[in-house]
Amino acid sequence: MILYDYWRSSAAWRVRIALALKGVSVERRFVNLLSGAQRRADYLATNPQALVPALELDDGSVLTQSLAIIDYLEMAFPQPRLIPTDPVRAAHARAAALAIACDIHPLGNVRVADYLARAFDVCDEAVANWRRHWIIEGLGAIEAMIRPEPFCFGPQPSIADICLAPQLYNAGRFGVPLHDFPNVRSVGAACAAHPAFVASHPSAQPDAEQTARAP
Amino acid sequence: MILYDYWRSSAAWRVRIALALKGVSVERRFVNLLSGAQRRADYLATNPQALVPALELDDGSVLTQSLAIIDYLEMAFPQPRLIPTDPVRAAHARAAALAIACDIHPLGNVRVADYLARAFDVCDEAVANWRRHWIIEGLGAIEAMIRPEPFCFGPQPSIADICLAPQLYNAGRFGVPLHDFPNVRSVGAACAAHPAFVASHPSAQPDAEQTARAP
Repeated sequence: MILYDYWRSSAAWRVRIALALKGVSVERRFVNLLSGAQRRADYLATNPQALVPALELDDGSVLTQSLAIIDYLEMAFPQPRLIPTDPVRAAHARAAALAIACDIHPLGNVRVADYLARAFDVCDEAVANWRRHWIIEGLGAIEAMIRPEPFCFGPQPSIADICLAPQLYNAGRFGVPLHDFPNVRSVGAACAAHPAFVASHPSAQPDAEQTARAP
Repeated sequence: MILYDYWRSSAAWRVRIALALKGVSVERRFVNLLSGAQRRADYLATNPQALVPALELDDGSVLTQSLAIIDYLEMAFPQPRLIPTDPVRAAHARAAALAIACDIHPLGNVRVADYLARAFDVCDEAVANWRRHWIIEGLGAIEAMIRPEPFCFGPQPSIADICLAPQLYNAGRFGVPLHDFPNVRSVGAACAAHPAFVASHPSAQPDAEQTARAP
């Protein structure tokens, strides 16, 4: 399998965490989002959405959307479980993951920030405030949805933690204070100490150095 | 089960379609988003995210996030399948659903439009242009991900169609031209003719009349 990846993409990092938790190795191809590589014809043929991650299977099928890829990995490599088997617990873990993946992350990603600055002619600080607003609002909801046990939904990481850790990395980048979110902070600490999260961290990726001076 | 619903919420409509496809009846409670009912203490106790839909189970458990609720319904009421059983086909259907639920819908919903107008002091037309931009960009990606057979991924509706139909309703509300998206248009027509989509349509809901003059 080939993972189309970018070190600082939250969505790509989610898939890296899932692969690390399941102990699955993949070939990596790096798509430099800052240089616009995601909009080049060769990558658009792989993923017409021009986003990372994409996972190319050995038969040439291409999977996109981080949460759909994680559901695929859950079926193809069932252990360890990333989604609880109990239907209600599964729904709670999925809901926390989606509350991040739908209601926080898309509002702050690069294409949205760029368009905001361009369409409304607003300064960098206004864009940063916009990003912070949605992270703070979103983490407030997450805080009420999870209990640190020490992960969001129990003693092992689930799909919720897989989404939360990259979002906390973004919160840090944009200077979001976390003092109002003790559950979130506690889960964040548990993730930060877990080998699968450490190995998949943006700063540990081979393409991080090439673009490390990027904003 | 109790569905916390609002006629014009795309996310709530997704769940209504899933329930209709599976032939599952629920009690309905209407949360008037325009009057701010979602931020009242009684509803926040049900869903701290202050969003609809929420599904309260008979044991009092509350499920949130439309796609997590649909995954729950898929486990609790397996027939008809809304997510293909083949892992790769499932990933493709989920990816199309997520490309709408993550990358189009959140950028155009009411809370985001309101915040945009307030934070950047922009006019209604600028907000409408913002909404149209993300719908057009998003539907362009969806167009390449689906084939009308006549639904997105085969002869029966799946989770992808469940997300696409409400997004097309929004596209219509905001005057997005669909001429560049023949696959999308064709699937939209198939959905519009399907009884489960008709019965769950916003205009057919009991709370539509009360707020029908709302923007």
